[in-house]
Amino acid sequence: MHIQFESYLRTNTNLPPEAISQIISFALLRSLRRNEYLFSTGEICRHKVFVVSGMLRTFNTSADGGEHILQFSAENSWTLDPESYDRQIPSLVSIAAVEPTTILYWQKADFNVLLTEIPQFKSFADQIISRNIYYSRQRILKALSNTAEEKYEDFVKEFPGYLLRLPLRMIAAYLGISLKTLTRVRHAQLQRY
Amino acid sequence: MHIQFESYLRTNTNLPPEAISQIISFALLRSLRRNEYLFSTGEICRHKVFVVSGMLRTFNTSADGGEHILQFSAENSWTLDPESYDRQIPSLVSIAAVEPTTILYWQKADFNVLLTEIPQFKSFADQIISRNIYYSRQRILKALSNTAEEKYEDFVKEFPGYLLRLPLRMIAAYLGISLKTLTRVRHAQLQRY
Repeated sequence: MHIQFESYLRTNTNLPPEAISQIISFALLRSLRRNEYLFSTGEICRHKVFVVSGMLRTFNTSADGGEHILQFSAENSWTLDPESYDRQIPSLVSIAAVEPTTILYWQKADFNVLLTEIPQFKSFADQIISRNIYYSRQRILKALSNTAEEKYEDFVKEFPGYLLRLPLRMIAAYLGISLKTLTRVRHAQLQRY
Repeated sequence: MHIQFESYLRTNTNLPPEAISQIISFALLRSLRRNEYLFSTGEICRHKVFVVSGMLRTFNTSADGGEHILQFSAENSWTLDPESYDRQIPSLVSIAAVEPTTILYWQKADFNVLLTEIPQFKSFADQIISRNIYYSRQRILKALSNTAEEKYEDFVKEFPGYLLRLPLRMIAAYLGISLKTLTRVRHAQLQRY
């Protein structure tokens, strides 16, 4: 687990080996079964999480029981609820495993030590936050503007591997369309090819 | 103009007077007519922008000519396109004035000097970025989950003053619903009260 994370850091940063060792020394390891929760709506998000393998989803559930998926986090990505983590307030979302998942995670206090002591790691963390901002803004515009067809085509293009890993209802919940509409869109596409 | 910005900084930060003076000394002033663009899709966003009075909208336009509004920025708020500004690449959105607007703006190089020289200002800027992240995530979940009725009610609650300032077509473009649907929702609400 740590070897994969080490290789991720080596590929994506110029951190010296001793910094990488320090970051890893604070990491905790956890395995989640399919459908197991990292935390639920109303709980406080206390950790920075790196997905080693598997996939998590960040979502909320509306009064009618419908699930709305903000984000999928597959291997080699980070996840958390930023507002709950930063302000230590109850989260408005849940994070749960879509498939058996292994994560590394850091206590907030430990992660803050790393950010303070390793300025290069702070820059890298800031980059990840920035990319998340760009992604969120794009996602809002897509949610506002695209037709169901465009949303689905865009999803297939952006996450080609996810189609085989996710149940259709989760893809629909991510795209903000009904399962019925998604099924119709997919059927129309299959006819075309 | 500068007096209002000074009072904004005094209210929202603990910056010492000399830091406030330094921030203001780098600020440039500009007035925009209604519908005037700050920059268009494809141009590079080169400035940090603080709205002194009036209102800006951040939007893109789809192939069919439909406008999709990411954000309104009224007085005492900041705006820019983060990805274009950070990476100095062409912006995927435009920013234009909804009403006659006065802004203060900073060249990127100047703003970076301020962030480096005034750590307290850097913290404040980071807070604003964080709030933008929380807001974007909420906005995605709302776009996915709410009905047109809920979206409109939520908008009225969140921005009570905006109804009188914005044409209906812009509110519809922000909510991601058609003007026809918005008109129906408003009509149904008026009947109820």
